[in-house]
This record gives sequence, structure tokens and C-alpha cells, in this order.
Amino acid sequence: MVRLAKIKVDPAQLHLYNSALKEQMATAIRLEPGVLTYYAVADKSDPSRITILEIYADTAAYKAHIETAHFKKYKETVEHMVKSLELVDVELIAAARQPGI
Amino acid sequence: MVRLAKIKVDPAQLHLYNSALKEQMATAIRLEPGVLTYYAVADKSDPSRITILEIYADTAAYKAHIETAHFKKYKETVEHMVKSLELVDVELIAAARQPGI
Repeated sequence: MVRLAKIKVDPAQLHLYNSALKEQMATAIRLEPGVLTYYAVADKSDPSRITILEIYADTAAYKAHIETAHFKKYKETVEHMVKSLELVDVELIAAARQPGI
Repeated sequence: MVRLAKIKVDPAQLHLYNSALKEQMATAIRLEPGVLTYYAVADKSDPSRITILEIYADTAAYKAHIETAHFKKYKETVEHMVKSLELVDVELIAAARQPGI
């Protein structure tokens, strides 16, 4: 299951938001084998516009993920930092990476 | 150097476009050490809307990439398949992945 999350963050709280996001990502990857991959990027022209590519093993892994303590903590922490959130379900066409990266 | 390419493809030519994209990605990763990572995804609600996350070692690697024969072949092949192309320069906030994925 693959998704793009498109997030607009309150610029005044961007540093706090990014910290919470990084903690959530690292914890989910460490504790949940079904959370496979995250890439979070910020527009250079406006770093408060964030896109996250999220890959889960399957829908069950995603549903389990959003019930975890670390995900709920993230959602509570960022509740008043996130100005808008768009979730786009996508299909992976292809992925390619240098070996060892 | 990290970028999001947001591409709208002619739906009638989507299969051909995806083939050309996959060939370009695989060839670039194989031949160019400075092309680090690609993820290409299509919106489930409209598979002709494609987003590609591209990571290059640096700007020089990107500039070399767009001069390669395989990239030029891709651009020529898809010239009349791509209806719009938006290139968004981004910064990587964080990436995380299960070991071995």
C-alpha cells in the first residue's frame, strides 16, 4: 500500500513539526515491520509544504500503524501545526536505487 | 539534490509512457552512480497523474544525467505523451526504510 501525504504546516511551528515527523518515522520503522519506507521532503520554495511518500506492506499494516501509541502521539502533537492534509492513494509504477543506498 | 516531478500523461498512451519511464529509470540507476534513487507512483484515482521522487548525488550528477543518451531517448519517446510536467525542487527532511528493503 503506497500513499502520498501532502501537508501544509504552520510556518511558525515548522521546526517542531519536522521534529515530531522524524520521531514518528524513525519509531514506526523500528517497531513496525509492516511500515516499509518513508521519504519526507519539503518544497525548497516553501519548506512548510511537505510531501511524504509512505509504503506499507499492506492495508492491515497501515491500519495497525494508525493505532500505535507513537502514531497517536504524533497526531496529537501536530494537531495544531498542520494547516491542511491531503492523502493521495497511489500505485507504485517502479522504484530503483543504487545498491547500498 | 532531490526533486519531485509531477507529470500528467495522455491516458491513451499511458502504457507506452510507463514502459519508457521504467526503462529510463533502470538504465540510469545501472549506468550512473550519481543517480541514487527513483520512486515513481501513479494516483489510484487517475493513473495518468504520475509523481516521481528523484534523488541525485548532487547538481553535477543531475546535469550529467540529462545529457545521457538514455535520458535523451526517454525525452524524445515521451515528448507527445506528456501533457504537463511540473518540477519541484525539494529538500529531504528524512528517509527511513526497513533493513533489506
